Amino acid sequence: MAPFMSSRYALRSIVRRARHASERKAFFCTETPALFPHPVSMVNGASRGLGLALTEKLLTKHPDSPVVATCRNPDSAAGLSALKERFPSQLTVLRLDVTMEDTMEAVAKEISSKYGRLDMLVSTSGILHIPDQMEPEPKLVNVDPKNLMLAYRVNAVGPILVAKHMMPLLKTGLGQGTGREVAVVANITCKMASLRDNLLGGWYAYRASKASLNQFTKTLSVECQRRKDPVICVVIHPGVVDTELSKPYQRDIPPEKLFTPETSAEKLMDILDSLTPEDTGKFFSYTKQEIPW
Amino acid sequence: MAPFMSSRYALRSIVRRARHASERKAFFCTETPALFPHPVSMVNGASRGLGLALTEKLLTKHPDSPVVATCRNPDSAAGLSALKERFPSQLTVLRLDVTMEDTMEAVAKEISSKYGRLDMLVSTSGILHIPDQMEPEPKLVNVDPKNLMLAYRVNAVGPILVAKHMMPLLKTGLGQGTGREVAVVANITCKMASLRDNLLGGWYAYRASKASLNQFTKTLSVECQRRKDPVICVVIHPGVVDTELSKPYQRDIPPEKLFTPETSAEKLMDILDSLTPEDTGKFFSYTKQEIPW
Repeated sequence: MAPFMSSRYALRSIVRRARHASERKAFFCTETPALFPHPVSMVNGASRGLGLALTEKLLTKHPDSPVVATCRNPDSAAGLSALKERFPSQLTVLRLDVTMEDTMEAVAKEISSKYGRLDMLVSTSGILHIPDQMEPEPKLVNVDPKNLMLAYRVNAVGPILVAKHMMPLLKTGLGQGTGREVAVVANITCKMASLRDNLLGGWYAYRASKASLNQFTKTLSVECQRRKDPVICVVIHPGVVDTELSKPYQRDIPPEKLFTPETSAEKLMDILDSLTPEDTGKFFSYTKQEIPW
Repeated sequence: MAPFMSSRYALRSIVRRARHASERKAFFCTETPALFPHPVSMVNGASRGLGLALTEKLLTKHPDSPVVATCRNPDSAAGLSALKERFPSQLTVLRLDVTMEDTMEAVAKEISSKYGRLDMLVSTSGILHIPDQMEPEPKLVNVDPKNLMLAYRVNAVGPILVAKHMMPLLKTGLGQGTGREVAVVANITCKMASLRDNLLGGWYAYRASKASLNQFTKTLSVECQRRKDPVICVVIHPGVVDTELSKPYQRDIPPEKLFTPETSAEKLMDILDSLTPEDTGKFFSYTKQEIPW
C-alpha cells in the first residue's frame, strides 16, 4: 500500500470526481477493497490494567475491527500475548515507549502500511508511583524535581507526542465504520487533574502532569476545530480502577467506587461509542458527566 | 540569629505563656527587637521586565520594607545593580537558578540569617521562547519534547520548588506589618494557562506549563488551608507586558492592552496589597477579576 498521506490525497481526488451519491457509494463498496470498512483503533499502554481490558473489550465488542495495542515491552506483556493467541489477525501488538519518539514513528509507519489510517487513539499509559523511588507527595516538602519531571514526561508529554505521530493517520481515518465521520483521540486522565475540584491537595506531580495532559488535549481539540480536521479530542476520567497504579491508595475508596479494569473498560467503551463532534474538547467522567477544569 | 525554624517555635512558646492581650502586646513591642516590624518580600526572576519593575515598586512604595531580589546571574543584571545603588540597605540581590535547588537553599539560608522570616514571595520567572531553539508552537506538528520539558522545568517546577524552600520562612513571617497576619505566595501565570478560556489553541509548551503552575499553586493553597498554615497562595495574570518575553508576539495586542512593566507592576502591587485569606487558591487577572481554570 502507498504511504498514508498519498492514499488520502488519491482518495480525495477520486471522491471529487465522483459527483453523485450513488457513484460515491459504488466507489466505497466495490472499487476500493483497500479502504477497510471497519474502524481501526489503537490503544497505547495496553500491557495491563485498563489498557489491556479496553483492548479486549474492543476486540470482542467490534469483532471485525482491528486493534493495534502498544506498550513498552511487548515481550513481557503476558496479557497481550494471550489476547494475540485468541485474536491473531484482528490484534497487532507493537512496541511504543512514550519517552522515545522513534518508537512512535515506527508504530505510525506500521499502521500506515497495514491499514492506511486510524479511527481511534486511546492513550491509557500513565505513572503514579515507583517502589522506593516515587510516591504521591502528601505535602510540598516531599516534592522532588526528578519525580515532577518524570510524571510530566510520561503522563502529559508522552500522550501528546503519540497523538502528534498518529495525527496524519487519524485525519485519514475519518472514523470510517463508526457512524460519526470523524476520528477520536481519547486521553485517559484523572479527576485529580481538575483544578476546581482540587479540595484535598497533595499529589503534586500527578495532579500537575494530568492537568497538563488536559491542557494539551484541549489545545489539540481547538487546533482540529479551527483547521477543520476531522478529529475530536477528549479526556476521560475512568474512575478508580483496581490496578497496580492505584493499589497502594485504595484504602478510602468505597467498594462500589473501585472498578475492576473490565468494568471501567466497559464504561469507557460506552463513552467512546457515543462520542460526537460536539463532545470535542471536553473532560468526561466515566458516566460521561462533564468534569470542570 | 538562631535558625529560622527554632525562632518561630521559641516565639510560639513565649506567646503561649503570655496569657493576657496586654502582655502579648508588650512582648511584641518591646521584648523582641529581632522581630522586624516591616514585611520582608522576595521577588524571584527580578533581573528584568515585570520582576525588576515590581522590585522597584516594592522598594519605593514601602520604603521601610526589605526586598530580596533573586535572579540567575546577578552579575549581569544591570537593572538590579542600579536599584542596589539607590537602595543599598533595603535591597538584597541574590543568585537563584530555578533549575538548581541548592541555589534556593542558599537564598533561604541568607534570608533566614538576615531577617528570620519572609512575608511575601512573588515568582515572576518564566520562559516562552529562545532564539533559534524554542518558539511557541503554532500546531501540534511543531511540538518538541525538549521544549515541552524545558518550559515545564522553568515555568512550573521552578516556582513550586522556590515556594518549597521558602515555606518555613513564610510560615514564620505571618505577614507582619502587612495588616493581614498571613504571608503570601504569588506566582505570576498567564491567562493562556486557563483550560476553559483556551479558544485559540497553539502554544502547547507554554499553556501546559502554566496550567501546571496553576495546579501546583492551587494544591499548595489547599495544603496550607488544611494544615492551618498562615500562608495564602494565588496565581496572577499580569496582562501582556512589553518585555523581551512577549516582544515577538505583540502584533495582535491593542496598544491599550500592552502594558509597560511599570504599569503592570503597579496593578500587581494593588492586588498584592489587597489580598486577604479569602483570596487563597484563586487565579486573578491584573484587574483582580477571577479567571476560570
